[in-house]
Amino acid sequence: MRLRNKKWAAAWLNEHDELVITQDRATGLQGNWQSLFENNAPLHVEIGTGKGQFIIGMAKKYPNINFIGMELQESAVAVAARKADEDEQSLPNLRFIYGDGAGVETYFSKGEVAKIYLNFSDPWPKTRHESRRLTYKTFLEGYRAVLPTGGEIAFKTDNRGLFEYSLYSFAEFGVKFNPNGISLNLHEDSDKMLDNVETEYEQKFSGAGFPIYQFIGHF
Amino acid sequence: MRLRNKKWAAAWLNEHDELVITQDRATGLQGNWQSLFENNAPLHVEIGTGKGQFIIGMAKKYPNINFIGMELQESAVAVAARKADEDEQSLPNLRFIYGDGAGVETYFSKGEVAKIYLNFSDPWPKTRHESRRLTYKTFLEGYRAVLPTGGEIAFKTDNRGLFEYSLYSFAEFGVKFNPNGISLNLHEDSDKMLDNVETEYEQKFSGAGFPIYQFIGHF
Ligand SMILES: C[S@@+](CC[C@H](N)C(=O)[O-])C[C@H]1O[C@@H](n2cnc3c(N)ncnc32)[C@H](O)[C@@H]1O
Ligand SMILES: C[S@@+](CC[C@H](N)C(=O)[O-])C[C@H]1O[C@@H](n2cnc3c(N)ncnc32)[C@H](O)[C@@H]1O
Repeated sequence: MRLRNKKWAAAWLNEHDELVITQDRATGLQGNWQSLFENNAPLHVEIGTGKGQFIIGMAKKYPNINFIGMELQESAVAVAARKADEDEQSLPNLRFIYGDGAGVETYFSKGEVAKIYLNFSDPWPKTRHESRRLTYKTFLEGYRAVLPTGGEIAFKTDNRGLFEYSLYSFAEFGVKFNPNGISLNLHEDSDKMLDNVETEYEQKFSGAGFPIYQFIGHF
Repeated sequence: MRLRNKKWAAAWLNEHDELVITQDRATGLQGNWQSLFENNAPLHVEIGTGKGQFIIGMAKKYPNINFIGMELQESAVAVAARKADEDEQSLPNLRFIYGDGAGVETYFSKGEVAKIYLNFSDPWPKTRHESRRLTYKTFLEGYRAVLPTGGEIAFKTDNRGLFEYSLYSFAEFGVKFNPNGISLNLHEDSDKMLDNVETEYEQKFSGAGFPIYQFIGHF
């Protein structure tokens, strides 16, 4: 997804550098993210937050977890953070990183992140772009470098090709599959839907009748 | 699938004991299956052959591979074998075992089987019946005991729950996922359909618009 450029984004991000952390500052916070939050709750990170619907929904639903949404498009992270900022509810358990998920192991130290979410990641269907997929092995190395043993990866997508590839990539890399962690039609699994928080893309694609695929695994 | 009882089946099987091997005789052939066939071609085994459409189609399509269809229902194996016997084409590369896939490691020795097919296996959706699923770990142990390193398992089903479970079970057991070995809608993958031979169930369910799931992996 490329969002149209928002002229106000750069200035707005500058004024909200408590809420949206730049890559440089994120690197400086490695091992020290708890200092940003009110408590020592577990930290969950979404990579590719888009306009923020999921991570804001999660922050509201789980006040006892701290959340970070990472996003590399300036306009998208600005839209997401502004939405969080303007919400009637204050969300002390939510921050954003304006940065690239490829750098995750430079922002966090081992075990600092308890869970990683990948939602409707760009599919990069061409084989020559395999290394850009957020489930490619170099990304999985990054996730392993910040998650503890047992730390989870939760992945949702409507994209069949990306999901097929990712199952292979997870298995090949040695990500463990959670028992009952796979759904090939999440919106028909009423038990799993109880916990589900929808993303923008999920709402669009499931609304249009496409199945949503989910994988939950761990290291 | 329970087939209605065929009164002619027992007698017919008795008269065709070259084509349909009983469990007792199969045990005696362990390590020696090549003696039944005209050549030393690789041996592929389907477990749960049903009425035989797939294995007969495979035997026709690949004359340089030897095939065995295993089936535990007397009526089904008799229907399958009679269909093969009455085919206008003679099929010297096809045999059946009237027996239980749970015994696979007593019928074959390590490396004697090059590839195993599981097609539209009974789903056994209740958790307390998990151990009856043909992708449960005790079955996977059996397959590993007869396949060589690199030997493949190919699995197709329309049943979402069974497929989700089986991906977990394969990964957990250490079955390697083939690159590009997963399809979540086989009949829309034109490249994979070139090699595809349909089963009875596949024809029925894909005809009714359901997606067919496929997994190909190896030890
Ligand atoms: C298709 S959108 C999905 C947005 C949202 N997660 C949803 O489900 O609606 C993918 C988002 O991931 C972002 N993205 C892609 N690669 C990224 C990376 N390496 N690091 C951070 N964000 C990334 C894109 O900029 C885009 O906003
Ligand atoms: C649902 S039918 C599918 C038949 C066929 N493979 C198809 O795709 O049309 C499953 C078949 O597997 C057989 N079966 C189930 N468990 C088996 C086992 N442990 N060993 C051999 N056959 C088995 C059943 O008797 C039944 O004929």
